Amino acid sequence: MSAASQARKRRPADDLSIVAFERGQHVSYSACGIPYLVAGDVSEPDDLVARRPEEFRERQRIDLRLSSTVVAIDTDRREVTVRGDGREYREPFDQLVIATGGVPARPDVPGADAQGIHGVQNLEDGIRLLSYLDAHGPRRAVVVGGGYIGLEMAEAMLRRGLDVTLVDAADQPMRTLDADMGGLVADALRAEGVTLRLGERLGGFDTRAGRVAAVRTSAGEIPADLVILGLGARPASGLARDAGIAIGETGGIRVDRRMRTSAEGVWAAGDCVENLHLVSQRPVAIALGTHANKQGRAAGINIGGGYATFPGVVGTAVTKICANEVARTGLSTAEAEAAGFAVYSVVTESTTRAGYFPGAKKIKIKIIAECTSGRLLGAQIVGQEGAAKRIDALAVALWHRMTVEEMTSLDLSYAPPFAPVWDPVLIAARKAAEALQSAS
Amino acid sequence: MSAASQARKRRPADDLSIVAFERGQHVSYSACGIPYLVAGDVSEPDDLVARRPEEFRERQRIDLRLSSTVVAIDTDRREVTVRGDGREYREPFDQLVIATGGVPARPDVPGADAQGIHGVQNLEDGIRLLSYLDAHGPRRAVVVGGGYIGLEMAEAMLRRGLDVTLVDAADQPMRTLDADMGGLVADALRAEGVTLRLGERLGGFDTRAGRVAAVRTSAGEIPADLVILGLGARPASGLARDAGIAIGETGGIRVDRRMRTSAEGVWAAGDCVENLHLVSQRPVAIALGTHANKQGRAAGINIGGGYATFPGVVGTAVTKICANEVARTGLSTAEAEAAGFAVYSVVTESTTRAGYFPGAKKIKIKIIAECTSGRLLGAQIVGQEGAAKRIDALAVALWHRMTVEEMTSLDLSYAPPFAPVWDPVLIAARKAAEALQSAS
Repeated sequence: MSAASQARKRRPADDLSIVAFERGQHVSYSACGIPYLVAGDVSEPDDLVARRPEEFRERQRIDLRLSSTVVAIDTDRREVTVRGDGREYREPFDQLVIATGGVPARPDVPGADAQGIHGVQNLEDGIRLLSYLDAHGPRRAVVVGGGYIGLEMAEAMLRRGLDVTLVDAADQPMRTLDADMGGLVADALRAEGVTLRLGERLGGFDTRAGRVAAVRTSAGEIPADLVILGLGARPASGLARDAGIAIGETGGIRVDRRMRTSAEGVWAAGDCVENLHLVSQRPVAIALGTHANKQGRAAGINIGGGYATFPGVVGTAVTKICANEVARTGLSTAEAEAAGFAVYSVVTESTTRAGYFPGAKKIKIKIIAECTSGRLLGAQIVGQEGAAKRIDALAVALWHRMTVEEMTSLDLSYAPPFAPVWDPVLIAARKAAEALQSAS
Repeated sequence: MSAASQARKRRPADDLSIVAFERGQHVSYSACGIPYLVAGDVSEPDDLVARRPEEFRERQRIDLRLSSTVVAIDTDRREVTVRGDGREYREPFDQLVIATGGVPARPDVPGADAQGIHGVQNLEDGIRLLSYLDAHGPRRAVVVGGGYIGLEMAEAMLRRGLDVTLVDAADQPMRTLDADMGGLVADALRAEGVTLRLGERLGGFDTRAGRVAAVRTSAGEIPADLVILGLGARPASGLARDAGIAIGETGGIRVDRRMRTSAEGVWAAGDCVENLHLVSQRPVAIALGTHANKQGRAAGINIGGGYATFPGVVGTAVTKICANEVARTGLSTAEAEAAGFAVYSVVTESTTRAGYFPGAKKIKIKIIAECTSGRLLGAQIVGQEGAAKRIDALAVALWHRMTVEEMTSLDLSYAPPFAPVWDPVLIAARKAAEALQSAS
């Protein structure tokens, strides 16, 4: 819908007719807000909706068709095949934007179709989960998968008063962090009351009367009245693949900086595409609303006759679990090594405000930098209030290939309610620069 | 003391003897914390002290002499003249660091020496003000000067339950902001209960029995039991000037990137020096603890045989007044025009978290950019919790001479507890880029 809106802004309805197909009932909503809807922070599903279908239809004259699934793309005949309104039909196009999003991973294990096993990919999923919670009053929730969604859903379940167990096949939650920083997150989760079952592979689900009763893992059985799946998503690129459009090694649709696919006049944006990682210079598929929005905007501007690009990502992400803030950008140690960098790292602990200022919280920052050059390659933050958003300054530094030595001079804001006299980011850069000097 | 510590780190006591002279009784404390000491956020003056004199003496073997004033520097004979311990003596040096700080502006008006008129430059000032508050229980405070210190002291007085009036000769508080953003700060101050007397020049003080009774301005008289002076400071460069060391057009000691003055083996750091503004490429004197610390560290590393630089500043500053957060970086519109840039600006309003997320607060960002190129020249933020620290991402972007169009692609962190799907910084950049496009 970002693409559609931007194209419409530049080309009025008498110049460009725009048709949008949506499989579900909702468009332009915050899927990232679903955990907070389930937790009760957000009272109504409608609160997550940025713009209602009528707004697109009436104000922007976009022919938005809900409950309509595109089942095929013909790039030669310039038409798509649509299933909707109880029929199948073809719709011609001059320009096409593929914005099919992601496919949540569903475990291929016995019992996976039982009642009480919920994904939380889209708003319908969230509404369904809320009804299940109201109807069945589950007491024991098992969250499978310790990524962003898994952790956010673990918090949501805690805040609704359920007993929460988190299962992950890895030895740490948040595999996008290094093990030591992931360990801090694990400690924080335990302190909040989550039972962690790490290093346990999912085996299946026991059911009773068609409803989930337990989760079986490689290490045993966990009683469960409710299971939340947070196993990640892969790009929904099947439709594009079937149409002969180039798919990258990550499984995402290949696009250039202007969001053009390999097919003339066919664009793609959102979780279905792969992006260039600007640090590793390799393709990555990162499902994130903010990238999707920017990509959609770029595609729409280009279709509208303007010029816009999405140059790539540096891998910034942030989340909050109860009072704990977690953020990362760039490459983890493992990612950096896989990309061929020789790296070292430094962890520093500091405070979010001047140490003497009321409300100062702990913040740990890990800096991952290139040996010899000291080039910043990645950063990870675990802390409390005021910690996470500091990742942005690091993300911009990363964008510009700064060295940790250069970063020590950055003019970051200082006042006692906001930072110690050396901001934690500067302390981290300084310690990383000093480590480099003493190594040389 | 930063310089002394860093030099000591690199050169042990048998290699380098270090003598430090301090006029007062305290070293290594947070002068920026004084308003919070006076407000009661910080309970003891000692809490503001990062390291006590004994720590420097015993752990670092720095010969720290308190109550000792250097009254002359002789760069030929390599010695300083010191007044202390009731005598005047000479102390030789090989290398000298001048870290004389700033001189607070004292108004040259009748009654300025009355009791109850307080500056808040150093810890002694803060302790004296606290005693005055305890001893005399003033009810009506007048703060003269609407800069950072003035506003922070206005908050401190409010929080102690005094009636507070702020007097400033300008038409807005915070002249480092554009008038429209300064107007937002004025509105916030009024809403917190501060009486603003803007555009009024200070005429003098009425006294009763040697104690201040009223402040006279160009527009009338304001009853006062207590006056706080927040009229800013200028570099304390007299000692250096008298020694024939080059002083810049701002009145600050001229230094190069390594903190060397014009005299061989003489270094300077802190509020007494002038810095290169990396956007205007002109010298500026900005009194800020974080710069002073970095400069001292660089001087100390260089004296210790290492290599460190302080390349300059981009003018970042931040403050909090009650619930209001204010930040700026780069050049204001007037500063940019004075530096020869043709500029335009855009103000955007957004929220600190996703609009639907509890605790989302308003944030206004003003972007000042160069016409035609769209290069970012400055940014200003007024908002509430979560607003101000966003200036750091803008400061790093400014450091790298980004255009507003380039900034729209930045990979800033997003999750509903921390930002809308487009972070306010990205929204601001986007609107600034769009304004440029529609102008061309």
